[in-house]
Amino acid sequence: MASRRSQIVLGLDPDPARLWPRALELAGGDRQGGPTAPAVERAARAVAAHCRLVLEAAGEECVAVKPQMACFERLGAPGWAALAETVSAARTQGLMVIADAKRGDIDISAKAYGQAFFSGTPSPFGHIPSLGVDALTANPLLGRDALEPLVEAGRAAGCGLLVLVRTSNPGAADVQDQELRGGGSVSRLLARLVDELGRPGIGHSGLADVGAVTGATVPERLESLRAEMPNAVLLLPGIGAQGATGRELAPAFAPGPAGGLVSASRGIVYAHERGAPPGGDPAEAARREAARLRELVWGLYA
Amino acid sequence: MASRRSQIVLGLDPDPARLWPRALELAGGDRQGGPTAPAVERAARAVAAHCRLVLEAAGEECVAVKPQMACFERLGAPGWAALAETVSAARTQGLMVIADAKRGDIDISAKAYGQAFFSGTPSPFGHIPSLGVDALTANPLLGRDALEPLVEAGRAAGCGLLVLVRTSNPGAADVQDQELRGGGSVSRLLARLVDELGRPGIGHSGLADVGAVTGATVPERLESLRAEMPNAVLLLPGIGAQGATGRELAPAFAPGPAGGLVSASRGIVYAHERGAPPGGDPAEAARREAARLRELVWGLYA
Repeated sequence: MASRRSQIVLGLDPDPARLWPRALELAGGDRQGGPTAPAVERAARAVAAHCRLVLEAAGEECVAVKPQMACFERLGAPGWAALAETVSAARTQGLMVIADAKRGDIDISAKAYGQAFFSGTPSPFGHIPSLGVDALTANPLLGRDALEPLVEAGRAAGCGLLVLVRTSNPGAADVQDQELRGGGSVSRLLARLVDELGRPGIGHSGLADVGAVTGATVPERLESLRAEMPNAVLLLPGIGAQGATGRELAPAFAPGPAGGLVSASRGIVYAHERGAPPGGDPAEAARREAARLRELVWGLYA
Repeated sequence: MASRRSQIVLGLDPDPARLWPRALELAGGDRQGGPTAPAVERAARAVAAHCRLVLEAAGEECVAVKPQMACFERLGAPGWAALAETVSAARTQGLMVIADAKRGDIDISAKAYGQAFFSGTPSPFGHIPSLGVDALTANPLLGRDALEPLVEAGRAAGCGLLVLVRTSNPGAADVQDQELRGGGSVSRLLARLVDELGRPGIGHSGLADVGAVTGATVPERLESLRAEMPNAVLLLPGIGAQGATGRELAPAFAPGPAGGLVSASRGIVYAHERGAPPGGDPAEAARREAARLRELVWGLYA
């Protein structure tokens, strides 16, 4: 983060119905995904091309990329191939990759997710490589023993976990904001769990390998959550499309500029639609918006 | 369920390192997954063959199959293809398919998961079909607005959701058993959410299209959770490998024999390892164990 002077995470939520026009052109001309291929193959080619173009345009201004798994899964096996291609393109560009998968499952299944994203899978046919991401978002509803296998797999691979603590959607209040009889909210309980799980994984930077997702839409909670997790990297969605802007995010950066990751996706990818007049070059608008965000956040907290 | 006289859900958690020997033979001889193919292709072929064999052996005794997504995801795109093949084989056999994905995400991403599992995805290249399952397990930590898009997509397709309310792992106590200041546990709050979401989807059977996962390992909670969700189908993992047996599951079946789905995976698939002496035919042992469970549960509650 220091060398790139950026805390911006480029969210990739590709919608086949809303890709950059150039991506559709590229997919149409490609042999594998040509006009006679099934719709799903062509859509997956177009999604991969779109992500490559977005990375080329805005990647330089960012420190990480965050593919939303749902958007690739809806394209089945070809979608997973497009995801793998996108992960590989991002890593070639020197970007970290955060798989936004929000996984969470019990023991043996959690171990399988750890293999899928971090460590790979042993088989009688040889080792099967993982998706090879740097971090994974995880859902903690199933408790500590469901997170531990993910932490272990990540830690062994030099990777990390970002645990949902307080999400940015209105419905987060339904469960995460509930007050417990013993005091504090569910989110605060989750924050303490993040802190405990991450403690053995604090690096020379002072940051742990278990971080948290804490929506930028609730800055008033950020300070108390940060107090529970002094060493956690906080992923802050909701900056662009959803609202929050600047100063109120300060607690995220208390441990230093790398304490907070500011996620933006549609705000960057569809920046050209908000231009005056709208309709300019998507790549140029995306680069400019990513640069604006990078400077805004780095200027405030570095 | 009435016509099959079965409440048994066959869990498929294929581990490439622990497949039935016959599946390895089949994968070795297959052209697509032959000896020169990459490890991941061969492993995915073997996993698909294993699932087909398990379905052929034990499917007849069951009412549904429950593939664990993590086990397929760790094989990347070929794993997703093996999953699609397994789903299709199960449906051909007349089994319902429950994708054990435990998904949960905000608005636009939840909608994308709904497309992935239920409704399919519109694209400029034509409609992209979904995985085509009958039900999906979902994680409710993100609240009502994160579940609604999944309920809607499922309902439109005549499919359902099974929401995590009280899981069967020890760590479930960390969050789900927490008592709220307003009274009741987190699980009870989730049960009420399940009931509300499912109410518009109650069919002529009296059962709703939003059900719950309530581990059979905590039968003492089953009665109070059932009281909150009188119309929900309860998926009960933990019967075989994890412990619970019979009578204590009665509250699950209060609305009738279809009120409870009893999930078993390793108990059936690895039944041959527990034989006396161990090492008999895996298919025969699986069929026998599935039949035993079917009769046990149907006998108690039908």
